[in-house]
Amino acid sequence: MKKFMNRAETLVTESLAGLVAAHERLVTFGADGKFVRRRSLRPGKVSLISGGGAGHEPMHVGFVGRGMLDAACTGHVFTSPTPDQIIAAIRETDGGEGCLLIVKNYDGDVMNFEMASEFVAAEHRIATVVVRDDVDPGGSKRSQGRRGVAGTLVVEKLLGAAAEAGWRLDELSALGESLNGRIRTMGVSLRGVTVPDTERETFVLAEDEMEIGVGIHGEPGRARVKFATADEIVETMLEAILGELVSERDEKLLMFINGYGGTPASELYLVYNTAKAQCERLGLTIARSLVGTYVTSLDMAGLSITVARLADRELSLWDAPVDTAALRWGD
Amino acid sequence: MKKFMNRAETLVTESLAGLVAAHERLVTFGADGKFVRRRSLRPGKVSLISGGGAGHEPMHVGFVGRGMLDAACTGHVFTSPTPDQIIAAIRETDGGEGCLLIVKNYDGDVMNFEMASEFVAAEHRIATVVVRDDVDPGGSKRSQGRRGVAGTLVVEKLLGAAAEAGWRLDELSALGESLNGRIRTMGVSLRGVTVPDTERETFVLAEDEMEIGVGIHGEPGRARVKFATADEIVETMLEAILGELVSERDEKLLMFINGYGGTPASELYLVYNTAKAQCERLGLTIARSLVGTYVTSLDMAGLSITVARLADRELSLWDAPVDTAALRWGD
Repeated sequence: MKKFMNRAETLVTESLAGLVAAHERLVTFGADGKFVRRRSLRPGKVSLISGGGAGHEPMHVGFVGRGMLDAACTGHVFTSPTPDQIIAAIRETDGGEGCLLIVKNYDGDVMNFEMASEFVAAEHRIATVVVRDDVDPGGSKRSQGRRGVAGTLVVEKLLGAAAEAGWRLDELSALGESLNGRIRTMGVSLRGVTVPDTERETFVLAEDEMEIGVGIHGEPGRARVKFATADEIVETMLEAILGELVSERDEKLLMFINGYGGTPASELYLVYNTAKAQCERLGLTIARSLVGTYVTSLDMAGLSITVARLADRELSLWDAPVDTAALRWGD
Repeated sequence: MKKFMNRAETLVTESLAGLVAAHERLVTFGADGKFVRRRSLRPGKVSLISGGGAGHEPMHVGFVGRGMLDAACTGHVFTSPTPDQIIAAIRETDGGEGCLLIVKNYDGDVMNFEMASEFVAAEHRIATVVVRDDVDPGGSKRSQGRRGVAGTLVVEKLLGAAAEAGWRLDELSALGESLNGRIRTMGVSLRGVTVPDTERETFVLAEDEMEIGVGIHGEPGRARVKFATADEIVETMLEAILGELVSERDEKLLMFINGYGGTPASELYLVYNTAKAQCERLGLTIARSLVGTYVTSLDMAGLSITVARLADRELSLWDAPVDTAALRWGD
């Protein structure tokens, strides 16, 4: 395994230090370096906190800033952050309007965010949204039901814009729950990844194979099949995604093509071109799109497609300005 | 070779179509789809045109937009655009103030931009900047002297801001030439790449080797050495880079850590952290930084470090707003 690092023990802290240094206008470390938070916290808004294992960068640290998260807690590679980190983030960023915790649906993450939440319940108002955007994973062993994957970016963007606009904790929580039913993601991997600590490879694929329905920790997916053309791969993925997204008349589609870390932009754009054309042939219009490498699995070669059905009000939240290390746009 | 594509013959056009569709607010195809240009051309400014082989995305198409390029001409993978494409871009985007062609120093690119330039010389005022930011490549066969690599982004950003601010053709050309002496880049690769058309692998590295001084077409570099820690790799690279950049008192440093396509953001940030610390130990302050995957070599695992010595006026050009698919910031 060749990876730009010094020691496995310090790779997460060194990488976070680089991100904070490169974006010091936007972010800073929280107390004792336990989390990354906005440099300037804004009083009078609900604090949005997320986190999870490292190895998915730029998620979540790259989404801290105006219009998105207030803080992100990072665990070691593919390992949940500790309750201690989450408690520190709650204490430092809650300005009195409460905290919304955005948690990907993995047992460890759910448990640690829950423990933190219970620990501070007497002092802070807390609500939690557990993101479950993956298509039905079948027999995955790492989560109860659907996993939280690249659609987490969409949830964090929309809730971030809403929090910035002054929505209350219960309103944000309701929007988060509602989004869970309207966002679906499916992934495909061309190559497993090696976890730096253990040197263990998550899975091994032959030169002509791909893994369909894969998670962001290199979990095996629904099926290992022969590698195919982009058209064929996208057709398989869209069929699974759209099959779980019953369309309603007043909603529009957002499509997000996400690279897993080892796939170049040129391929992601080619896949977007194919996916857009296939949607149009089905009579579906893409109202908004995002193409890039945002929710990764170390340097895994592969990508995911996320489709969200959004109401006009939610499209406006998507369009609202955001200023973070990884996602940035103006009015 | 597993790559998200349909056919090698159409992979560039399909990928460009995806980029244009995903960023239709910013860009559109020029005449006959020969190039990508800004959706709204601004009269009264010099037109900035760049281009080169595909396989380096998001460069250059991702740099088309307000504050950067007016048009980008893309050839096939690792193949120069034709004079025909460049001539079409000049004709469509020159609003009377002339065109500045920004060309990476590779024989094919230099020749084709020169032919286009001569062809339209009677109708258009043209100046050309040939970017040569690579550290001395020794015996590379693909270019005369230093190659144009990731530093091209810096040149295009600074000249783009200057053109937007109303600089004249001769002023832009002079700034471009001056930057050539003050920007240096060095690359390191952990894995060669396979070119889709030919299925030919550029070079093969053993599990414990890396190639130092590599170009962005998978050209072999200065030396093939044992893989090392991030600290050691960065030290080797900075020594080569800083050795060619004699510092002057009134200049500040911009550092750009660029991923080659197959390297995740977490590793790039770790390398930035290391490089910044090493510069500080040498008494050098990083005034501006950029960390991300912008100038790629298909899905090559590896990265480059670029250091530029900039005057205050040039730092302001760097800070000026830019609105493109790949690079975007506001005031």
